[in-house]
Amino acid sequence: MAGETAAIVVDWGTTSLRATLVDARGNELENIETSQGISSLNKGDHEEVLTAVLAPWFSAHGALPVAALGMVTSRNGWIEVPYVPCPAGPAELAAGAIRRSLPNGSDLVFLPGLTDPLRKPFPDVMRGEETQVAGHGLADDATIIIPGTHSKWAKVKNRRIDSFQTFVTGEVFALLLNNSFIARGAAQPPVDDPEAYRWGLEEAKNSGAMLSLLFSARTGGLAGKLSAEQLRSYVHGMVIGQEFRQAREDGWYSEGGEAIIIGNDGLNDLYVAAANVFDLEVTMGKDDVLIRGALNVIRHTLS
Amino acid sequence: MAGETAAIVVDWGTTSLRATLVDARGNELENIETSQGISSLNKGDHEEVLTAVLAPWFSAHGALPVAALGMVTSRNGWIEVPYVPCPAGPAELAAGAIRRSLPNGSDLVFLPGLTDPLRKPFPDVMRGEETQVAGHGLADDATIIIPGTHSKWAKVKNRRIDSFQTFVTGEVFALLLNNSFIARGAAQPPVDDPEAYRWGLEEAKNSGAMLSLLFSARTGGLAGKLSAEQLRSYVHGMVIGQEFRQAREDGWYSEGGEAIIIGNDGLNDLYVAAANVFDLEVTMGKDDVLIRGALNVIRHTLS
Repeated sequence: MAGETAAIVVDWGTTSLRATLVDARGNELENIETSQGISSLNKGDHEEVLTAVLAPWFSAHGALPVAALGMVTSRNGWIEVPYVPCPAGPAELAAGAIRRSLPNGSDLVFLPGLTDPLRKPFPDVMRGEETQVAGHGLADDATIIIPGTHSKWAKVKNRRIDSFQTFVTGEVFALLLNNSFIARGAAQPPVDDPEAYRWGLEEAKNSGAMLSLLFSARTGGLAGKLSAEQLRSYVHGMVIGQEFRQAREDGWYSEGGEAIIIGNDGLNDLYVAAANVFDLEVTMGKDDVLIRGALNVIRHTLS
Repeated sequence: MAGETAAIVVDWGTTSLRATLVDARGNELENIETSQGISSLNKGDHEEVLTAVLAPWFSAHGALPVAALGMVTSRNGWIEVPYVPCPAGPAELAAGAIRRSLPNGSDLVFLPGLTDPLRKPFPDVMRGEETQVAGHGLADDATIIIPGTHSKWAKVKNRRIDSFQTFVTGEVFALLLNNSFIARGAAQPPVDDPEAYRWGLEEAKNSGAMLSLLFSARTGGLAGKLSAEQLRSYVHGMVIGQEFRQAREDGWYSEGGEAIIIGNDGLNDLYVAAANVFDLEVTMGKDDVLIRGALNVIRHTLS
């Protein structure tokens, strides 16, 4: 049952703006998505764009608190919100938020990203995933995986996000598939082959020599063992498998351990299969953790 | 002192044809380079192209033995020469060569590539580097490094190339620099910074979590520690450093060991610096190993 309209959450990234109208329980009422990502805008354009996008909702419901997060809070966005350091929960994230007003009197809260100052060689950073982890809930200590172009592994400890680490897995896979020696060999249109994907995972489990293992995408074809139809999934398995291997070596889990996958970037099934090969027991978080996390943080900010 | 004209070596790759006229001692007398790589040619065009390129030399010196190697001997080239399996020296390579005649009566010898059937998950392959190793000489057992887009590490043992392994280091570096999140941050025109390069090597020595370490190319900038001018060399250090780390883990050397760098792909100084950081003592082979190796193999073939 949807309750009364309570807030708007704006996930404003490099290539898109996604606004969600929610009730007090965090149920999604309506969505608007446009291609007005921050890379398409000039400094000074943001307020006008946002006001225009949200105008129908303001007309219908009056002023509403708006949470804005994502790259819009980065150096290249609207207002740069400094990263909040780990360990942090909703209270620390709320304390790091920047509050403004829109022309119609609506509160506008820019949510901060998170930094892990202990990560080597430089502090690690995220913008958006910390809100997802907060939305998942911090009651239980856990290892959280957020698959993506730049995947994140995070530890929840004592009701706060204690630490995290980035893996640029999705980006490396896309580079290999679209721009490397592998591109010429893969079947078009792309084929997903779960068995070839699992094979790639197994090879990553067998060898951490990633720069060498990648060449097996060519030698497998030369040997007549790997078909053009298998190539894409095999390479995806090798690359995601390297993430699981490296995350284990960096202490994010041990064989037989547990983790939770959150977020919804279309990769979750692949990550479940990877966890299975690497003997990590995973469960899936809810789909709407970003909305829940944003509401949680702005409640702290506006209370 | 140059002796009598003895042979022609044609290094015929994907994007270029490089012909070298040599005397019996392997001294280079003249060079011709054209952009008639095999990717620009149709099946059936090769003999005509080669005859036209070599015509001035045939006019001046009459028929001469011609050694052809590189991608021209691959599936997409002129004549596919099957890979010869390791262990192999000049005699085994010569036995795997394919012999033809050009219209003017010149012997044309297509040199084979090499395969290492024991490499996992599939047999590894090279086309051209085996000739470089043969040209370096096989008298002493050694670890040989051939830097390149697809670097090779090879073991010489009992006067033969015993085994080898490919690392796609140069290709991954180019992808990262030109097509990834790193591309936007690097200074233009490109800057080479030996100190930043060494820094990247040290970080690769500290961490094998390559998919995570690569993100330091962004976080270093956000932290104000890594400048746009340092970025290119830092990333190059991280990637070549991963090759040295992985080669060590796969048994190609131990700390305090020795290796020889051959070939001349513009990377040798960078590989010397990497070896230094990884406590591997390297010496440099001669520049003209490809010519020497090709002469050595065709002598076996034509004798």
